[in-house]
Amino acid sequence: MQSFRLALAQVNPIVGDLKGNARLVRRYLRKAKKAGADLVAFPELVLTGYPPEDLLLKPSFTDLNLKALEQIVPETKGITAIVGFVDKQDDIYDAAAVLHNGKWLGTYHKHYLPNYGVFDEFRYFQKGDRVLVCNRSGIRVGLSICEDIWQPTGPLSRQTVHGDVDLAINISASPFSRGKRREREQMLSTRARDHTVAMAYVNLVGGQDELIFDGNSLVLDERGKVLAKGKAFCEDLVVADLNVRNVFRARLLDTRRRLEKRTSAGREHGIDEIKLPSIPKGKEKRPPLAERAQQDMSEIEEIFHALVLGVRDYFQKNGFEKALVGLSGGIDSSLTAALATEALGSGNVHGVFMPSRFSSKQSLKDAETLAKNLEISFQVLPIDPVYATYLKTLKPVFRNLKADVTEENLQARIRGNLLMALSNKFGWLVLTTGNKSETSVGYCTLYGDTAGGLAVLKDVPKVAVYALSRYLNEIRRAERIPESVLDKEPTAELRPNQRDSDSLPPYEKLDPVLHAYVEEDLSLEEIVQLGYPRKQVREILRMVDRNEYKRRQGPPGLKITPKAFGRDRRLPITNRFNS
Amino acid sequence: MQSFRLALAQVNPIVGDLKGNARLVRRYLRKAKKAGADLVAFPELVLTGYPPEDLLLKPSFTDLNLKALEQIVPETKGITAIVGFVDKQDDIYDAAAVLHNGKWLGTYHKHYLPNYGVFDEFRYFQKGDRVLVCNRSGIRVGLSICEDIWQPTGPLSRQTVHGDVDLAINISASPFSRGKRREREQMLSTRARDHTVAMAYVNLVGGQDELIFDGNSLVLDERGKVLAKGKAFCEDLVVADLNVRNVFRARLLDTRRRLEKRTSAGREHGIDEIKLPSIPKGKEKRPPLAERAQQDMSEIEEIFHALVLGVRDYFQKNGFEKALVGLSGGIDSSLTAALATEALGSGNVHGVFMPSRFSSKQSLKDAETLAKNLEISFQVLPIDPVYATYLKTLKPVFRNLKADVTEENLQARIRGNLLMALSNKFGWLVLTTGNKSETSVGYCTLYGDTAGGLAVLKDVPKVAVYALSRYLNEIRRAERIPESVLDKEPTAELRPNQRDSDSLPPYEKLDPVLHAYVEEDLSLEEIVQLGYPRKQVREILRMVDRNEYKRRQGPPGLKITPKAFGRDRRLPITNRFNS
Repeated sequence: MQSFRLALAQVNPIVGDLKGNARLVRRYLRKAKKAGADLVAFPELVLTGYPPEDLLLKPSFTDLNLKALEQIVPETKGITAIVGFVDKQDDIYDAAAVLHNGKWLGTYHKHYLPNYGVFDEFRYFQKGDRVLVCNRSGIRVGLSICEDIWQPTGPLSRQTVHGDVDLAINISASPFSRGKRREREQMLSTRARDHTVAMAYVNLVGGQDELIFDGNSLVLDERGKVLAKGKAFCEDLVVADLNVRNVFRARLLDTRRRLEKRTSAGREHGIDEIKLPSIPKGKEKRPPLAERAQQDMSEIEEIFHALVLGVRDYFQKNGFEKALVGLSGGIDSSLTAALATEALGSGNVHGVFMPSRFSSKQSLKDAETLAKNLEISFQVLPIDPVYATYLKTLKPVFRNLKADVTEENLQARIRGNLLMALSNKFGWLVLTTGNKSETSVGYCTLYGDTAGGLAVLKDVPKVAVYALSRYLNEIRRAERIPESVLDKEPTAELRPNQRDSDSLPPYEKLDPVLHAYVEEDLSLEEIVQLGYPRKQVREILRMVDRNEYKRRQGPPGLKITPKAFGRDRRLPITNRFNS
Repeated sequence: MQSFRLALAQVNPIVGDLKGNARLVRRYLRKAKKAGADLVAFPELVLTGYPPEDLLLKPSFTDLNLKALEQIVPETKGITAIVGFVDKQDDIYDAAAVLHNGKWLGTYHKHYLPNYGVFDEFRYFQKGDRVLVCNRSGIRVGLSICEDIWQPTGPLSRQTVHGDVDLAINISASPFSRGKRREREQMLSTRARDHTVAMAYVNLVGGQDELIFDGNSLVLDERGKVLAKGKAFCEDLVVADLNVRNVFRARLLDTRRRLEKRTSAGREHGIDEIKLPSIPKGKEKRPPLAERAQQDMSEIEEIFHALVLGVRDYFQKNGFEKALVGLSGGIDSSLTAALATEALGSGNVHGVFMPSRFSSKQSLKDAETLAKNLEISFQVLPIDPVYATYLKTLKPVFRNLKADVTEENLQARIRGNLLMALSNKFGWLVLTTGNKSETSVGYCTLYGDTAGGLAVLKDVPKVAVYALSRYLNEIRRAERIPESVLDKEPTAELRPNQRDSDSLPPYEKLDPVLHAYVEEDLSLEEIVQLGYPRKQVREILRMVDRNEYKRRQGPPGLKITPKAFGRDRRLPITNRFNS
């Protein structure tokens, strides 16, 4: 056997749904067999979903994941399957099982446990240190899990130099952020070339709270050339034929690592080798491989699909069908409603416009037009009567104190209450509409416009909100977000003639400073040196710092940048540091 | 010199306040010198406060902490000081500086980085591996940091067996939880005996968001006997005289570790030794040691003082003076207001009673009595007019649908809005009143009674709420919490004749199940085996699981149990696991 048919099952499991995830694995096992694959690989922790977080502290959770794995074993008759699960030995491990022709023949334990950014794996797992090589009819396959492959000196090096591996499979759960796909592809290509080895990378797909896994699985040859790509942001079975004979040939040409190589010393390097018994072939010919589109998405296209998937999965996985969005006639709520419509269908999105004495006629018109464009339901609930009653109730306490931000917040909170009342009564999930720029500086009302289950744009800077809106109008070849919404000046409409620019620098100036501070952790001095005015920078940084308490109580938001608010950025509320 | 005067500076720094913390250190340096101490030890990361969380990802933060340390160095003329800080070498380290007579002579890097429970130290630090021994006029002092001493095979073993240490100093930032002090004291006593070494343990004190550091620093002799104790829940300078000659004598008697000992091989065991130059003594006699009260607190007393300190520091460190509590006449809001009064003084606490058509006269009376007992301000703001206006506004949408939990939540949210309006107008911080039992099962309204800055009782089970209330009445020798509040049946008063027991099992039955599930991570089966009815257990577990989204958006709460909601318990919202 020289051509090896490999399948990557890029699937979308649900955290904690051990039975459902096992069913999903069995379904893709059948698909892979039907496609004539010799081996099929599933993503990291596919049985538990990723990240399972503190579910891993419940021994019953790990036990049930093992039971689920055991039920899969007999279903691997006729194929080899690599399945991500939690192994329990002396401790628990992030692991890959080698299931072969109905038997569980080996297990690999992840070596490198990421504990930065959104990852907390040292909290849960013991690390592995042995390398696993599977010999399948003379083809030597090495395994690794996610972070392992990001380490230039990780197990891949031992696999190829001392384990003589032809094909290196990495099973991953690698969340999306802007630019990540390209970085990943470059890295994998470099690894393949450095180690002269064919590579397969299978990634999870789907949304899990803040995280969105993008799929984009890859098969590369030993020269780093991409042979097949998984789809972005949806499930896929990637099938590719590898000519593994080329690996040996290429190593005769590129001898960079020859002097390090001592195959005889494999065991000394902690390498376990298992021989997979050969599987008698049936008579049918393998089905031909389907053509695969290889077009990569642009950055804005990726963000768009990431958000749509993130919304859809948050609803489906949490048992919600319908979304409710408070429409203000502004760009953020318009884009949020449009994304919800893409994710859930227009019949499942409800828009409510909640005017006050400060709302302009144009706002109503824009909200109405948007709802019409999106074909979503539209309702108007005026807040003035409730607002007036609040003021009357508070009068004995407020007496003749001047109106200030209190009254503005009150309006936002009435809207929050109305949305939550609809949510409670009809079971709709409220989507909040704040973007990353506002969330950064706290330009929002806690329990007001931050009230809801999911903050769709929480990680989308204002400038990108415009770009996404234009992109959406373009791909739908229609005006979904009205032009007048794209054109007008941002305003919260909480007092007469209010504009965002009364309180904030223009977003084109604000966003780069926020990027430098929030995403790059630059200091005041360093940002000033980039050419921004000191006074403005100081004020922006102060706003970011003192609004940590608001972010702490906000709903989870979908991560699309390298550093999102939430599990990615963990700052104390009580914090006197400034600079 | 055979008697060695040791001081432990149990201080309360503020996270991020590098300059303020350096001033605090200097103040205690002067106190220690005045007390005639040879050496003074400060807690772990005293310069940055603990935990600094992602501030550690800002290089400017580490740089400024180093600058603060350098400014302290000259102030150590005449004394040795051990100061916790963040060291920056090839990477950053959780470190202890040895400052001696105006010079920085050595640095120890923490070996064991906790990454469980509330700790995330692998996220930030590189680990150390060298052991530091300071020779001060023939007395050999070894250093370690917090987690190091909790490891039975940690650096203490190398210090004593191969480094011949007389006194082992551990600088800590160890947060309070029920039972922790006793556990800590036992462990330290066992370590002292196991290694035949005098021990000094200096802990941080103060509140930092969810965490409360309890102080309770300790000095123990080489037989594990406590020589001096720091106060609980307040700053203290603990001074003790050690007869270090006894250490050598005791090792001649207890020779358990003699065979392991090879002092000549110190360097092979990664031990760095620094000789501290002798400091010429002045002529004044050392002041005599003050008598210290050694009475330990009971568990309920500890919890009480923990909560008071937690509230006080959250206010002071975040720049708030005055608290606002929505009083319902029930036990939770009564205790919350009473604790706030203890923390801030009665002039700084405002109570508001917000009756609806469902509020009983007794509730008003109880709230009024409480306010009178506590001598706090008291206001009544009825919610019915606003409630009626909301219902009218929603009528076109709700039409003739039956009243349900929507209307109950609406009332709670009106109260939340009124509290937030007062908060916004007057700068008062709203305290929420939900206890751990309610928070566990989600018996609360998001943006309603969960609206506020700090959840005082979030980690206090309902049964403990009663115990704390009785304790408070007892120590104040007066009825602070009215007896009628202690006696009546819990009710949310959101519909006619509502009782908590309509929706929940009695708290005496609920709390143990919640303890087993939330704190012990037992499964459904395991809890049933403890003797609780399966149907009830299943329902309780389901409530805990499906209310994760509410907890995620709630304010931070003060941790007093071994597992609190918040950074201690990290569960996904999207989670299909049940059992």
